[in-house]
Amino acid sequence: MLLVDLTLVSPENGTDSGLIAGAVIAISEDRILWAGPAADLPAAHQHLKKQSLGGRLVTAGLIDCHSHLVYGGDRAREFDMRLNGAGYEEIARAGGGILSSVRATRAASEAELLASALRRADHLIAEGVTTIEIKSGYGLDLETELKMLRVARRIGQERPLRVVTTWLAAHALPPEYADDRDGYIERVVIAGMEAAQAAGLIDAVDGFCEGIAFTAAEMDRIFSHASALGLPVKLHAEQLSDLEGAALAARHGAISADHLEWLNEAGIAAMAASGTVAVLLPGAFYTLRETKLPPIAALRAAGVPMALATDSNPGTSPVTSALITMNMGATLFRMTPTECLAGFTVNAARALGLADRGRIAAGQIADLAVWDISHPAELAYRIGFNPLHSRIFGGKPCPL
Amino acid sequence: MLLVDLTLVSPENGTDSGLIAGAVIAISEDRILWAGPAADLPAAHQHLKKQSLGGRLVTAGLIDCHSHLVYGGDRAREFDMRLNGAGYEEIARAGGGILSSVRATRAASEAELLASALRRADHLIAEGVTTIEIKSGYGLDLETELKMLRVARRIGQERPLRVVTTWLAAHALPPEYADDRDGYIERVVIAGMEAAQAAGLIDAVDGFCEGIAFTAAEMDRIFSHASALGLPVKLHAEQLSDLEGAALAARHGAISADHLEWLNEAGIAAMAASGTVAVLLPGAFYTLRETKLPPIAALRAAGVPMALATDSNPGTSPVTSALITMNMGATLFRMTPTECLAGFTVNAARALGLADRGRIAAGQIADLAVWDISHPAELAYRIGFNPLHSRIFGGKPCPL
Ligand SMILES: [Zn+2]
Ligand SMILES: [Zn+2]
Repeated sequence: MLLVDLTLVSPENGTDSGLIAGAVIAISEDRILWAGPAADLPAAHQHLKKQSLGGRLVTAGLIDCHSHLVYGGDRAREFDMRLNGAGYEEIARAGGGILSSVRATRAASEAELLASALRRADHLIAEGVTTIEIKSGYGLDLETELKMLRVARRIGQERPLRVVTTWLAAHALPPEYADDRDGYIERVVIAGMEAAQAAGLIDAVDGFCEGIAFTAAEMDRIFSHASALGLPVKLHAEQLSDLEGAALAARHGAISADHLEWLNEAGIAAMAASGTVAVLLPGAFYTLRETKLPPIAALRAAGVPMALATDSNPGTSPVTSALITMNMGATLFRMTPTECLAGFTVNAARALGLADRGRIAAGQIADLAVWDISHPAELAYRIGFNPLHSRIFGGKPCPL
Repeated sequence: MLLVDLTLVSPENGTDSGLIAGAVIAISEDRILWAGPAADLPAAHQHLKKQSLGGRLVTAGLIDCHSHLVYGGDRAREFDMRLNGAGYEEIARAGGGILSSVRATRAASEAELLASALRRADHLIAEGVTTIEIKSGYGLDLETELKMLRVARRIGQERPLRVVTTWLAAHALPPEYADDRDGYIERVVIAGMEAAQAAGLIDAVDGFCEGIAFTAAEMDRIFSHASALGLPVKLHAEQLSDLEGAALAARHGAISADHLEWLNEAGIAAMAASGTVAVLLPGAFYTLRETKLPPIAALRAAGVPMALATDSNPGTSPVTSALITMNMGATLFRMTPTECLAGFTVNAARALGLADRGRIAAGQIADLAVWDISHPAELAYRIGFNPLHSRIFGGKPCPL
C-alpha cells in the first residue's frame, strides 16, 4: 500500500514538528518500507497500490506508556464524598481509597474486568492510540495480579491495540501484610514476578517508591530480582516527595522514571547518564491539585527524553484521553506541542524500551494516526475535541 | 411515549442528586407529561407506548449557557508560539491575540463559519448537550456580528440542538475605533443591537467588563439600551480584576454574571438579591492558569444559583466538552458533582432566562440525556470518557 497526499508529522526530527507536506508512506504487510517527500519515492515502491489521505496530517500511532487501565469498580462515590467535605478518615471508614479498588479488583471476574477496561481502551483507540502499557497493582495478591495481567493481554486480542504489560505488585502494601513488609515482597512481589514471567504475562517491572508505599531500599531489592530475570525496570518516583527513586532507577538502567514532580538535580543527571526516559503524568498532577511542577526545563536542558502518559487509574487520574493529557502537558507543564506529541510517540516507545514503533520510518511497525487538522499544535491546543480521522494498525486501515 | 426502566436524576431537588430508581417519563409530542416513580404513574398516561432505557440514568439534556462557538480560524499556532517562549509583543507582531480571531471571522464566509462551528457543536451534542448559547463578538463591525449570529441560528437548523444567541459586540474595541470608544458603542454596539433584534437574531445582550475591554459606565449605557429594547442582559464580570461589574449587572436585573473570579462580597449580595445566576467558567481559569478562585463557598452560602459552561472560544478556553468542564468545576473549583450537573441543567436554563428546560418535570421540553453510568457523580469524576448512551431531543430519540 502507498499512502499518498498526506503531511508527515515527525516530532522526533528536533524541536520543530518535522512537517513534510506532499509526502507518501510505503507499507508492506505490517511494516513501513519508506516515508518521505513524494518526489523522492524510490522506484521500487512506485508500483504499490495508492490510497489518498486527502492532504491530512499523519503521525505515528499514539502510545500511552503508563496506565493502570484494568481495575474493578470506580471511585466516583469517593470523589463525590470528598467534594461534599468528607475527610480522609471518613472516606477510609466508608471503604474508599486505593484499597477499595483492590477489593473490587479481587472480587471481579476476568470477564467483568475485561468489559470495563475495554470501554476505557475504546476511548483511547478512538483518539489514535495503537499501543498501551497496562500495569498490575490492584490485586496485591499473586492470583489477582496475574488475573489483571491476563485481562490486559486479552485487551490486545479483543481490539486492534498492542498491549505492553508491567508487574506492579509493589504498588501498595495490602492490609494482610501490614506487619510483614519483607514477607509481601518475598512471597507476592518477587514470587509473583517469577510466576508472571514464566506465564509470559509481563514485559517489565515497576514499583511505587514513596512514603506511603515502598522505600528505595525495598525497590532496590525488587529491581535486582527483575534484572536477574532479564526484565526491564521502571519506577513511580518523586511524585509526592523526594526519596531519590529516580537515581535508584537510573542505577538499575531503568527504561523510565515516572511522575518526577520532586526530582532533584542529581536525579536528572543520573537519568541523563543512564538514558532513562522521564514519563510525565499531568493527569495526576491536575487531579491531586499539586503545585510543585516537574523540572521540565532542567530535563530538557539535560537532554532527558520526555514522554507523556494518561496514568489512567481510578483514584488519582481517571483519564482516558491522550489528547487531554497533551493539553495538560502544554497548559500545566509548559511543554511545547511538539514535545507533547513526541511524548506520546517516539519518547513513549523509548519509555517502553521499544525500537519498532513511535516513528514514521522504514522498518517501523505501520501503526499510524490520521488527523483532520492543519497544524500538529492543534492536538495539544484543544480540550475535548477529537480530530482523529482514522488509524492504520499494522498496515491495515481502521476507519472510526 | 413512555420511557420506562430508568433512573431519574434531578439535581434541582436539593443538595443530593435526586435519584429515583425505577422511574418512568411520559412524553407527548415534544413535552414531558409526567415523570416519577413507575408506581405513581397516573392512569391517564399508562396507555402510552413503552420504551425501555435498560435501567440507565437519565438527566435533563445538558445546556451550555456560555459559548463563543462561532469564529474563524483557530489560535493553535499562537498557543505553540507562546509555549516556545514567545512573549506578548512577538505574538501580537505575528498577528496573534483576539484580533487575529476578529480578522479570521471577518474574512470567513458564512459557510466556512458554519462548517467549523458544526464540528465543535457535534462534540457537544455527542456529550448530551441539547441547548447551547452562542455569542457574537469576533466581528466588532455590524456586518460581521450579524453574520456570526446568522451562523449561530443556522446551527440550530442543521442539528438537533436549540441555539440561544447573545449580542456581544462589546467584547473588545476594534483597532479602527481605537480613538473613538463612544463612536464604537453608538454605531456598532447599540445600532447593531437594534438591527440584530429587528432581524430576530438575538435573545440577550452581553459585554466584557474589564480593563482591557469596557468600563462599568460603558456597560451601564449599553444595558440601558438593551432594557429599552426588552432584551435580557448578562455580563463577563470580575474575570481578571474587580470592576464591580456583577453589581452593575445585578442593578440591571441581569440573568447572569459570568467568570467572577474577583467577585467581592457586595457583588455576591447584589446577585443574590436580583436572582442573577453565577456562570462559572473553569475552562478559562485552567487555560489562563489562574490562581484566584471564584468565591464558590460564599456564592453557595448566599444562595446564588451556580451554572457551569464551556466558554468555548479560540483563545482562553478552546473547550468543546461539557463533561470535562464538569470535572474542572469539581476538581478546580471544588463544586460538588451534583452542583456540576445542576450547573449544566437547571441553573444553566435559569442563566438563559428559560423556564421550559433544564428539569425533568411536567411541562418541560422533552430534551433528555441517557447515560451508561451507575451514579451521577461519574459524569464529573472522569476525564475524557463519554458515557452518553443517547439523547432524546424534543421527544424524539437520537441514537449516537
Ligand atoms: Zn501510575
Ligand atoms: Zn465568554
